[in-house]
Amino acid sequence: MSIQIDYRFPPGVNAEKQANVIAIGQTVGSWDDRFSHREESFQRYLAKVIRVVTHDSGHSTATVEFPVANTEGDIGSLLTMIFGKFSMAGSGKVTAIRLPEDYGQRPMVGLSGIRDRLQVHDRPLVMAIFKPALGLTAADHTGILREVAAAGLDIIKDDEIMGNLDIAPTIDRLKACREVITQTKETTGKELLYATNVTGRAHEILDNAKRLVANGANALLFNTLTYGWSVLESLAQDPEVNVPIFMHPALAGALCGAPDHGFNYASILGTLAAHAGADAVLYPAHYGSLPFEKSEEMAIRDALRDRNVFPVPSAGIHPGVVPRAIADYGNDVILNAGTGIMDHPSGPASGVTAFFEALDRLESGRSFIIDEVPDSALKTALKKWMV
Amino acid sequence: MSIQIDYRFPPGVNAEKQANVIAIGQTVGSWDDRFSHREESFQRYLAKVIRVVTHDSGHSTATVEFPVANTEGDIGSLLTMIFGKFSMAGSGKVTAIRLPEDYGQRPMVGLSGIRDRLQVHDRPLVMAIFKPALGLTAADHTGILREVAAAGLDIIKDDEIMGNLDIAPTIDRLKACREVITQTKETTGKELLYATNVTGRAHEILDNAKRLVANGANALLFNTLTYGWSVLESLAQDPEVNVPIFMHPALAGALCGAPDHGFNYASILGTLAAHAGADAVLYPAHYGSLPFEKSEEMAIRDALRDRNVFPVPSAGIHPGVVPRAIADYGNDVILNAGTGIMDHPSGPASGVTAFFEALDRLESGRSFIIDEVPDSALKTALKKWMV
Repeated sequence: MSIQIDYRFPPGVNAEKQANVIAIGQTVGSWDDRFSHREESFQRYLAKVIRVVTHDSGHSTATVEFPVANTEGDIGSLLTMIFGKFSMAGSGKVTAIRLPEDYGQRPMVGLSGIRDRLQVHDRPLVMAIFKPALGLTAADHTGILREVAAAGLDIIKDDEIMGNLDIAPTIDRLKACREVITQTKETTGKELLYATNVTGRAHEILDNAKRLVANGANALLFNTLTYGWSVLESLAQDPEVNVPIFMHPALAGALCGAPDHGFNYASILGTLAAHAGADAVLYPAHYGSLPFEKSEEMAIRDALRDRNVFPVPSAGIHPGVVPRAIADYGNDVILNAGTGIMDHPSGPASGVTAFFEALDRLESGRSFIIDEVPDSALKTALKKWMV
Repeated sequence: MSIQIDYRFPPGVNAEKQANVIAIGQTVGSWDDRFSHREESFQRYLAKVIRVVTHDSGHSTATVEFPVANTEGDIGSLLTMIFGKFSMAGSGKVTAIRLPEDYGQRPMVGLSGIRDRLQVHDRPLVMAIFKPALGLTAADHTGILREVAAAGLDIIKDDEIMGNLDIAPTIDRLKACREVITQTKETTGKELLYATNVTGRAHEILDNAKRLVANGANALLFNTLTYGWSVLESLAQDPEVNVPIFMHPALAGALCGAPDHGFNYASILGTLAAHAGADAVLYPAHYGSLPFEKSEEMAIRDALRDRNVFPVPSAGIHPGVVPRAIADYGNDVILNAGTGIMDHPSGPASGVTAFFEALDRLESGRSFIIDEVPDSALKTALKKWMV
């Protein structure tokens, strides 16, 4: 088994030459006669250029194959090897990472486990985000959660910017929300997951995650790219953190947004996330509010589901996009809306109801043309977001 | 005190509009009448656009000021706030991060502490890298270290790709090297720092660092960008890890190499590294083997030294660049050479000697024109690398 990486170079770059720089420079480096007795050992660590293809656009893609034994089976050592020093060598973008199936980790809970915990197996899940992001008190969160819980929401999460602030400690927010979750379970029998944002320095994150779970957190949100892959890996394998971890893509654009540098989104938010142990991964939807290519979105979807990770297309999601989302995803998707639920003209509960109405309407094959939709939370949502 | 961020946009982007998207979208977000009673609280969290300047090139730079209270005083929450979601919004590059002086951490050992430990206060330090990067045994490392230690080397480090591999465990390499370091100290009185590469999942890194230090590691190397800022922060404040941490820039190009996306190098390898607790930071030298702008290098130098962090310009450093390096840095610099020491035609010891000869020659104002340099390790080096 080996690791294969595709590197795409813009026109004018000698892809073959660069690929050889990678194969040698990102593994053994050069050696001379003094080490001729180690020749055999060096050969085992060297990467190989296995293909260079030139595209019609003038771009070229080189595929380099690395020995798995050069890494520690984790994301950190993988990234150091495939793009550590070479990332600083000029233009060149990683456009595919192909790993052995047993490389890295698998989610402890995953797509199937999230469904089991919610006891929902036959439809997409609906997820909301606490908004406004900053400035609310724990009591405000309680009020919002009561409304959306009563409407049957499956999952809610902190905004990724809402951390453990002096003026709004995470544990207070969790305790306030936990009460609503318990009450909802008692009165309706329905479970609701609240992905609580876990933050801090690495040792604090690992401690905080356990403390949050011990205090009733039934899911966590983690900004993997701003805090570190290695921390996600630790959280994902900690038996005391036996709740689903939702990976937020904050900062992904700095790694993936440029045409000829960094990575494509599917490598980071698809492949690496799925091999780092995330249970669900958020990323932009191509019909949302952020610029995103459909092909990237579908590649992420597939990379995640292949390893039982729940795809969570996000940003600009509202009830009006449900037909397109379900056409792309079918049932195994989490529809994640922030303002698309919280800013519903009739309030957040109606925002949730509008999603369920949209799912029902779609399942029964009825039209989404506004004039043909009867007065309802859905119609109000379509009028706000589809015109 | 506040946090000021410069965002640079390419021609054609409405910088004022984008800056407002950042100021609102990366803090509170929008709100309506339902939350009018929290208006005052929201206002405290909102960022402000304080300046938009258009450059002759057509690029514009917007400066946005964020409240410190929106963060947890660390790098993770800072990055999530300043460039989390917005990094995915299209073109736009962070070109300056201005933090309050007390934001984040300071190095526990730092430039002055590294000098104290080495008892070298009056000249640049000379640092080598074990090469070839992979494929050597612990015994090979012992052999190399003996040679360079005898020549008076100050610091040596693992290649960043050399992790804790099954076939080459870090602890074995450390123990082998530790013996040489102890012997050198006993026979010559000279201390030598060996920056041992610490790797793994976050909880393993934190444990491994302590274990390495307990086993005699007197410095650590850490690939901060591939493993995570939050892990560096934890290492840097751990009283059991009371050795200097050398931050390696692996992956920096993926964040900083693109013209209109991500960050400039000085923000990541200068400002953030200096506020995350690193004791020394490696980065490309503009006269080295990687493409790098002098202005970025000098900005990194200043950001590091301002907080007692040792600058380590790297990649393609050899004795022939000493005059240029010292002109840029004076004494407070670590001259870090991989092949520039290890591939010296007369062997690594001569590679080290050549650096010291270069420093002596420079100090006494003698010429570096090859024909004017007497036969020496330095002359051999100049003949190999300067023609």
